[in-house]
Amino acid sequence: MAQKPSIPKGTRDFSPEEVLRRNYIINTLRSNFELFGFQPIETPSFENSSTLMGKYGDEGDRLIFKILNSGDYLSKVNDSVYQERDSNKLTSEISEKALRYDLTVPFARYVVQHQNEIEFPFKRYQIQPVWRADRPQKGRFREFFQCDADAVGSDSLLQEVAFVQLYDAVFTDLGLKGTTVKMNNRKILSGLAEAIGAADKLIDFTVALDKLDKIGEEGVIKEMLAKGISEEAITRVKPIFNVSGTFAEKLELLNQLLADSDVGKQGIEELAYINDKIEALGLTTVTLDLDVTLARGLNYYTGAIFEVAAPEGVKMGSIGGGGRYDDLTGIFGLKNMSGVGISFGLDRIYLVLEELGLFPEQAIKGTKLLFINFGEAESLYCLKAVKALREAGITSELYPDAAKMKKQMSHADKRNIQFVVLAGTQEMEEGVYTLKNMKTGDQTRVDLEGLKAALA
Amino acid sequence: MAQKPSIPKGTRDFSPEEVLRRNYIINTLRSNFELFGFQPIETPSFENSSTLMGKYGDEGDRLIFKILNSGDYLSKVNDSVYQERDSNKLTSEISEKALRYDLTVPFARYVVQHQNEIEFPFKRYQIQPVWRADRPQKGRFREFFQCDADAVGSDSLLQEVAFVQLYDAVFTDLGLKGTTVKMNNRKILSGLAEAIGAADKLIDFTVALDKLDKIGEEGVIKEMLAKGISEEAITRVKPIFNVSGTFAEKLELLNQLLADSDVGKQGIEELAYINDKIEALGLTTVTLDLDVTLARGLNYYTGAIFEVAAPEGVKMGSIGGGGRYDDLTGIFGLKNMSGVGISFGLDRIYLVLEELGLFPEQAIKGTKLLFINFGEAESLYCLKAVKALREAGITSELYPDAAKMKKQMSHADKRNIQFVVLAGTQEMEEGVYTLKNMKTGDQTRVDLEGLKAALA
Repeated sequence: MAQKPSIPKGTRDFSPEEVLRRNYIINTLRSNFELFGFQPIETPSFENSSTLMGKYGDEGDRLIFKILNSGDYLSKVNDSVYQERDSNKLTSEISEKALRYDLTVPFARYVVQHQNEIEFPFKRYQIQPVWRADRPQKGRFREFFQCDADAVGSDSLLQEVAFVQLYDAVFTDLGLKGTTVKMNNRKILSGLAEAIGAADKLIDFTVALDKLDKIGEEGVIKEMLAKGISEEAITRVKPIFNVSGTFAEKLELLNQLLADSDVGKQGIEELAYINDKIEALGLTTVTLDLDVTLARGLNYYTGAIFEVAAPEGVKMGSIGGGGRYDDLTGIFGLKNMSGVGISFGLDRIYLVLEELGLFPEQAIKGTKLLFINFGEAESLYCLKAVKALREAGITSELYPDAAKMKKQMSHADKRNIQFVVLAGTQEMEEGVYTLKNMKTGDQTRVDLEGLKAALA
Repeated sequence: MAQKPSIPKGTRDFSPEEVLRRNYIINTLRSNFELFGFQPIETPSFENSSTLMGKYGDEGDRLIFKILNSGDYLSKVNDSVYQERDSNKLTSEISEKALRYDLTVPFARYVVQHQNEIEFPFKRYQIQPVWRADRPQKGRFREFFQCDADAVGSDSLLQEVAFVQLYDAVFTDLGLKGTTVKMNNRKILSGLAEAIGAADKLIDFTVALDKLDKIGEEGVIKEMLAKGISEEAITRVKPIFNVSGTFAEKLELLNQLLADSDVGKQGIEELAYINDKIEALGLTTVTLDLDVTLARGLNYYTGAIFEVAAPEGVKMGSIGGGGRYDDLTGIFGLKNMSGVGISFGLDRIYLVLEELGLFPEQAIKGTKLLFINFGEAESLYCLKAVKALREAGITSELYPDAAKMKKQMSHADKRNIQFVVLAGTQEMEEGVYTLKNMKTGDQTRVDLEGLKAALA
């Protein structure tokens, strides 16, 4: 008895419809990345373990998929290490390679390795799968695509401006109205912590603040108190719990709160610069908003922080995000390589487009026309038309066997093919095709040009 | 001191230019696959080891990359197995998943797993990387893309006809003139072995025959003799060593040689059918040829065999191939799933296009225009133009800092950007842009419409 086949948990097969829809999103990203001057690179699926390990913290190290060395890998293992029977220790003896965990570390490795070929500032995009040995759950997979764009080797704020425009361009093309690009700045968070005399508690402060959406003002205050931030300090920053108004109005409030903090004022200036430019240039689809509670990736980001929220009413976490970092490549020995980058959440954007019915029909370019096969002579007649249609860019097929009519029609039906052609001896004599619309049942007789016109 | 970064042997980083060129080929494949009614699927990068192991022979099993189980994987290993310290035995205890080795076995697994959702005949294409722990050498990598198209659930020879047309369509789009699609049929090889009374030596016979190109007639005869095929038998098939003429003429010769072999005659009939249809339909770029020495994948193929030769003069092995098989999915318990499939060799096609200078310039869509940054006011003026150009589909960028002119010009130069715009106070006042052609040095003053026109 043969095994019943399955795939590893947390992985997915993608059906034709799913691949076509994913490619629709990916192609939209690619074309906009390129339009904005980002260049694609690709890196190997697996890296040397030394490149990846230790870059994502202990938890990250555990979630990295390791590849077993080939051949008689145990022959190279030291006896005493083997006898210890410690999984962690043995791993480094029997595994030298690991599947990439994200695209950032491979990108940093790429920049350092190819620094002499790269002309800086370097704007690259990368759309490739990554792998994580995470516990699979709804919406969390062990293999998934990341779609990243980064500009490195420049600390100009015009890069941030371009990223807001890039989000706008992509979501405009995808028809995703109501999307919000939320921005914050690490320096504002530092400034707030400083302003309330809790600079040493920056992480605790921002982690609590980040939860405002989920646990509300009361919850945040409770957490801050628990972390040893004084009631008086909290009272001083309370206004930020209920900030409203325009980007500029929010900046004005921050200006008051952070009047004494140099770093805070710098953060305000940066955001004001970006907002001014965006206001002057205009946005088509997205709204730019300031969200002082935004703190994602705080350990990493040093300036701007981005997060993209799906249109209101769609229950979905962020569908993109990013920020500015000071030191991308220091881990590989190349100092002072600052940059800013954003990512798009492919799986989530997919779900949002699906929920809102925004996938265009053309995204699913299936076969539009099936020629029914009535036998040898008829099939050659039809194949000539198939060829002419393909040359005109129209996807059509001949059913491969002269099977029963019912079977062939059912095949067209199950594949959602919109038209069939019935062409027998009479049609061949007259040089025409009987074209049947599978939806309406309408039949018309047309010549080859008529076929092209009906399907174009 | 930080580590000097590198990548595992046999893997590659792809630079922007390489990715764009690879995508040019992949997009050409995709659009033709879809035009011919093939639908894309994608499968996970790793499969359960039980899905892959034992499907490619002992050598294949060795070349499959195994993924180490996560967590404390040794805790589940049986004591006595551990003490044996046998790499092979331990592997199955500490590794449950493996990177896919080709796209065929995952496709077979997909068909069986999703058989109730699939409408047969099912035509799928798949373009994904595969991994092999092969010894890396020139042109052989441990990670490379396969590009496969298969039609399963039909034994109609019209599928073979379509595949010849598909090769023609792809190589037409790629401008690869002089490409030859060579065909043979497993039944003809069986017939030949039968005709010379060496049916039991079919493999030896065809393996020797397959080397005709490399070792010549004398070498082939020597090898056949060494394998115990009689001199008299060899004399009887000698005519096939020097077959020439048209496809039909070659078939005629085979007709004489195989007059007494039923299976041989069936092979001839099949090839004649395909050739007749192709002659009636016509080919644009490729030549269809009959090559009786072609025996690739003999253990697997049961009917048609395809192999694509690059244009003469290009030193390159086959750039594609495939054939018909009787039983794709039997290994997973689904019987009688016959099909036919072909593949395209992405890396080799890349090298051929490069050698012949056939990559179109548009394949490398880089930034066409760099706006020189003269400061705050000027940069906003330029950003408005950048935005308008992007909306017109033209890739342009503003240099992110008001750096020294020389540095900015050199940046444009190094990135092969064709045009720069110099726009200072005077241009702003007049609403124009000074456009400089970096190649010729020519400068003109144009308005926004003029910019678009110059770059379109």
